[in-house]
Amino acid sequence: MYDGNVGSVARAMKNFGFRELVLVKPCRMREFGRAMASHAQDLLDEATIAPSLEDALSGADLVVGTTGKRIGEGQRHLRLHLRVPCLTPKELAERLFPWEGKVALLFGPEDCGLSNDELMNCDLVVSIPTSDGYPVMNLSHAAAILLYELSGIGPGEVKMADGNSLDRLYARYRDWLCSIDYPPHKIEYTMLMVRRIYGRSGLTEREVNTVLGALKKAEWSNGR
Amino acid sequence: MYDGNVGSVARAMKNFGFRELVLVKPCRMREFGRAMASHAQDLLDEATIAPSLEDALSGADLVVGTTGKRIGEGQRHLRLHLRVPCLTPKELAERLFPWEGKVALLFGPEDCGLSNDELMNCDLVVSIPTSDGYPVMNLSHAAAILLYELSGIGPGEVKMADGNSLDRLYARYRDWLCSIDYPPHKIEYTMLMVRRIYGRSGLTEREVNTVLGALKKAEWSNGR
Repeated sequence: MYDGNVGSVARAMKNFGFRELVLVKPCRMREFGRAMASHAQDLLDEATIAPSLEDALSGADLVVGTTGKRIGEGQRHLRLHLRVPCLTPKELAERLFPWEGKVALLFGPEDCGLSNDELMNCDLVVSIPTSDGYPVMNLSHAAAILLYELSGIGPGEVKMADGNSLDRLYARYRDWLCSIDYPPHKIEYTMLMVRRIYGRSGLTEREVNTVLGALKKAEWSNGR
Repeated sequence: MYDGNVGSVARAMKNFGFRELVLVKPCRMREFGRAMASHAQDLLDEATIAPSLEDALSGADLVVGTTGKRIGEGQRHLRLHLRVPCLTPKELAERLFPWEGKVALLFGPEDCGLSNDELMNCDLVVSIPTSDGYPVMNLSHAAAILLYELSGIGPGEVKMADGNSLDRLYARYRDWLCSIDYPPHKIEYTMLMVRRIYGRSGLTEREVNTVLGALKKAEWSNGR
């Protein structure tokens, strides 16, 4: 991100009561970026600098990717499932409302957005409905709109399964697919879809354990 | 407004399908402001320059003023009623929804906002709910959020799986649990949970088919 956008995003975060800014391999902050942050200098000073996306996301229970590239169901290429289905910011807010857990909101660089590989790390994808005439938004505007939609959400009553439990679930799901001779070339695609389904759903620890239990049982049963 | 904000607002307008930008006694547009407009140069070129606020608002059926200064109901000074009650952007959108007419959305200069006199020209006042810790937003962020709420552009075209497909999915899931000797007394509970998970998630037809395919494959594999 260019430093003006970093500063603008910091300001929007503080406007809506968010504090934890994590920057992956950021550009240098110059005077202009500092000025755009206005009274949110503290957020810039406290921002975490992460050497990789993986590091940046390590503490998150749920990763929400943002994309401006929306794609209709009619288009059939495999990669499209990275971006379909997309939630609107309002839908995201409604979905997150009952949950308690740490959610990471992930933005790509302003010139090209999140890559397909980066979107593979996301449990959910959100996109702001814009005009077809000019859908590409300024990054800090997109951030401001998402933070605005998410700002009213306090910690909910239902505790989310933590990120590690989900990782175990996905690993076990993958093992299970292998164990049933699921076509190897379909595994990545199916795992992405599984991740998106459970990501949109939101899972409690208990639900993770139940699904894990069923998969474990299936492997034993199959291995007899 | 400083020219960067004018450009940013033009871009946000085009992002959400708005076109008519009216500037009252504006600053000079420089290179930076033009750059911030990105692909919305046409909006800048077509912008109307008005010599006074009265001129700017002459064609509007309804004037909506924006303010960051929110004032509690408890404060009783007459002037306060300029800003009370304030609608949120969502409330404004709901209120404008059934109407046909020309609505002007009025923003003040970024340093001080609309004056009391300027607010006297407004039919409605809207304010974005922000954090008490730092309520003062960047002007173009505030504009982006309001335009987003007012754009009326619906979500995408992703069609949800229909009820029959989901019934088939749940029946197959139940069969699969039986086939792996899942404890019978746990089946109802687990099926309820599965249904809640997928229900919250929302599934496309394609996703149903993929999960169905995996379950079918599992049963064949297990039955060998």
